Amino acid sequence: MTASDAAPPKLYLDDLKPGDRFTSADHALDAAQIIEFASRFDPQPFHTDAEAAKATFFQGLAASGWHTAAITMRLLVTSGIPLADGIIGSGGELQWPRPTRPGDVLHVESEVVEVVPSRSKPDRGMVQMRCETLNQHGEVLQRFTPRLVVMKRPG
Amino acid sequence: MTASDAAPPKLYLDDLKPGDRFTSADHALDAAQIIEFASRFDPQPFHTDAEAAKATFFQGLAASGWHTAAITMRLLVTSGIPLADGIIGSGGELQWPRPTRPGDVLHVESEVVEVVPSRSKPDRGMVQMRCETLNQHGEVLQRFTPRLVVMKRPG
Repeated sequence: MTASDAAPPKLYLDDLKPGDRFTSADHALDAAQIIEFASRFDPQPFHTDAEAAKATFFQGLAASGWHTAAITMRLLVTSGIPLADGIIGSGGELQWPRPTRPGDVLHVESEVVEVVPSRSKPDRGMVQMRCETLNQHGEVLQRFTPRLVVMKRPG
Repeated sequence: MTASDAAPPKLYLDDLKPGDRFTSADHALDAAQIIEFASRFDPQPFHTDAEAAKATFFQGLAASGWHTAAITMRLLVTSGIPLADGIIGSGGELQWPRPTRPGDVLHVESEVVEVVPSRSKPDRGMVQMRCETLNQHGEVLQRFTPRLVVMKRPG
């Protein structure tokens, strides 16, 4: 590790403005990961059995949408949006426009939509983000528009 | 297992109408599960370290919202909404009004909001659901309003 590999600066509410963009690292997904996650949290044949999946709506093995969402969160936390006090969401609109497949390499592109300082709590604000999870072909696998609680710089 | 323990009938689009309600079984959550999930998918101190979590926004260990969502999906699939062809969602609005904590016992209460047969594909329709994930105190931990693809009864 060299100095240029150092972590990016940690950001506070004061540092964010609409249009700011962030791109995460990649995550390579395979059938084993898809089956392992789905066996625990979304045990349906189209997520757990490549052969049985052929005769279903998905016409082949597809990741649980919640797996796509969980990988997206890992990418946001580890390389996506460097917020000083962490990524704290209260929810948002979630869409899966196409299935996530074995062999997909995921990354997340995020944009700040709106920054709203809190009136009642002067140490923080709400930030509306738009986060798209894409595969290596540029196909959008997930759209999520989280509302984040972001703290101001202390002092 | 007796006859009365038999699985509920599997439902098709034809069987659903607004106001239909479903209640899942329970899932008991503990700190170990919270830390294990978050270490993989949401590695932030308030989800992975009970001691460090005390000084954060959450003032103690809290589950990742994505963990609450994943447990909700497991409950829906295994005991929540008995759809014949599975639970296939295209997305929805997701809210976490309060943190999920160690010791919480989760269940999901679901209601059919709207049933819309497809105009272009006569074998299926979209069903708008409202799914609330509650703990043993009746506190709402998650609200999710998925849009599901549901198949009609064959033949």
